[in-house]
Amino acid sequence: MTVFSSLSELRAICCDLPEGNLAVAASVSARDAQLTKPPGSLGRLEAIVAWLAQWQGRNPPRLERVEVLVFAGNHGVTAQGISAYPSEVTAQMVANFAAGGAAINQLARAAQAKLRVMPLSLDKPTADFTLEPAMDERAFLEAVTTGYGAIAPDADLVCLGEMGIGNTTVAAAIAAALFGGGGARWAGRGTGVDEDGLARKRQVIDRALARHDGALADPLLVAAALGGRELAAILGAVLAARRQNVPVLLDGFVCTAAAAPLKALRDDALAHAQAAHVSAEAGHAILLERLGLVPILDLKMRLGEASGAALAVLILRAALACHTGMATFADAGVSEKS
Amino acid sequence: MTVFSSLSELRAICCDLPEGNLAVAASVSARDAQLTKPPGSLGRLEAIVAWLAQWQGRNPPRLERVEVLVFAGNHGVTAQGISAYPSEVTAQMVANFAAGGAAINQLARAAQAKLRVMPLSLDKPTADFTLEPAMDERAFLEAVTTGYGAIAPDADLVCLGEMGIGNTTVAAAIAAALFGGGGARWAGRGTGVDEDGLARKRQVIDRALARHDGALADPLLVAAALGGRELAAILGAVLAARRQNVPVLLDGFVCTAAAAPLKALRDDALAHAQAAHVSAEAGHAILLERLGLVPILDLKMRLGEASGAALAVLILRAALACHTGMATFADAGVSEKS
Repeated sequence: MTVFSSLSELRAICCDLPEGNLAVAASVSARDAQLTKPPGSLGRLEAIVAWLAQWQGRNPPRLERVEVLVFAGNHGVTAQGISAYPSEVTAQMVANFAAGGAAINQLARAAQAKLRVMPLSLDKPTADFTLEPAMDERAFLEAVTTGYGAIAPDADLVCLGEMGIGNTTVAAAIAAALFGGGGARWAGRGTGVDEDGLARKRQVIDRALARHDGALADPLLVAAALGGRELAAILGAVLAARRQNVPVLLDGFVCTAAAAPLKALRDDALAHAQAAHVSAEAGHAILLERLGLVPILDLKMRLGEASGAALAVLILRAALACHTGMATFADAGVSEKS
Repeated sequence: MTVFSSLSELRAICCDLPEGNLAVAASVSARDAQLTKPPGSLGRLEAIVAWLAQWQGRNPPRLERVEVLVFAGNHGVTAQGISAYPSEVTAQMVANFAAGGAAINQLARAAQAKLRVMPLSLDKPTADFTLEPAMDERAFLEAVTTGYGAIAPDADLVCLGEMGIGNTTVAAAIAAALFGGGGARWAGRGTGVDEDGLARKRQVIDRALARHDGALADPLLVAAALGGRELAAILGAVLAARRQNVPVLLDGFVCTAAAAPLKALRDDALAHAQAAHVSAEAGHAILLERLGLVPILDLKMRLGEASGAALAVLILRAALACHTGMATFADAGVSEKS
């Protein structure tokens, strides 16, 4: 198993990425043009199949082994009163995942996907990043390594998501560090804080940015100082998926922010990932735009847990069913465009 | 079976509609507030389940008998050169539906829905509405009656769609007649006409509006003079579904335009319907806005055939799975909001 022993080693690997198989993607588009529909009329569905093929390196692509990975972590910054729920809920929800009672259990089943939940040292929250870095290099690399190792090279698709009370504040801090704009631009209501809670989130983010000012130019230092274990694991998982040509569905704001440092290190680093949805959390639409990601779904969800990602699997399966099941103009005896 | 013998009889029935069971919808929302997620965090999924419950009159609602109805018709206005495909394609695609080779076959299967295709006198296209009314009262009422009779009262959900070369011009003419703006606002590229084709569509619509000026104040006369058999059947099906408390998913531009006259007759006439998606056809987003419908999906599709509606069934099934399968805070021992 890959273990990252230093930030510089990790940084080098983040820049050494395969680019997928564009010839296979082109063969998907060529077949699409022969299917019994006006060219391009299945819109995003056609692009999705070509994208799956590009990264899986085969036409037709497959969706047999679909995995949903949910990483969970706790955050010292919750001491600042930035969440509507107590930190205990992270572990309680992990137990709920194990018992099958959460939204993601139902959605993963609907998506015919295998759900795996990975709690990361829930009894050891990261440090309060208004006071010190959330993680030191060692703790950060350990979480990245865990996420990296969670990707099965023979998976056809991986959905990534998270659970962690306080982590929309963490995600907003990372987004602000990478793209500017401060707490005012990136803080949202998360699980449902009131006006005072929202004002606290904004202040907490701005204080953290000021404290870690010296680290903001380095995307990996940002992810360590302002991040969290579940976000670091997602970063590792997105990286491993790319290195192994596994397509990825990113979930909501936290998941997207977790992956964002990779894009800052290499501009095409998220080409193997699609944004499954745009969430109702304030900063997500802006973040997706900054990353050049166009969400598949927009259903005003804001739950996390990979819920939006699992839902988007249904669209991917339908897209693939059209591509593999439809007749061509020639086979069906349908006249082509005049 | 209900047979409409006059426009005035049909008009009276269009205004005599049940309003669904709001108490059952409220009971869905009450349960939603107890499920292990922040209140409202499943967004549109929560609203969808409440809406299904309102019209089915039961909590939880069911999605066991889901039907996809595709009506097909031919249009005399194709003589004006307003489509990229010849009229023969309508019947060829109906044969393709029967053989299982079209997109809707794959999507209906993915949605676990039963597909029924109803061709409407394909060998007798409607009249060219730039010269005379597309249908006389008798032909219009016959098509409405066919659509009305196609709704099974015990269906849990009906997806409506269409196939008919030339029918985006027809839909644009109806939308222009009901909402103003002429061909310039409502004509789009349909199956893929070029600039000249688009200019012809605009002119054809404007000529039709001028010719039928005297009929434009009456939504049912609009549907007869500027419509088509498959659109009239959709109008009848939407009406029958409402009268029998069956929730409806509308597909794209043509399907939405077909239902629009009902809204003009009674403002809440489409409350039992949701817009499954917004299509890439130019006028659809504007039409949905005028009708107060918010699409579930936006995937740049523009195929018709109920393809967007079938796709949205997947979202409805997932929404229902969350509602019925999730644990409550109390059951799961998860702390509630502080």
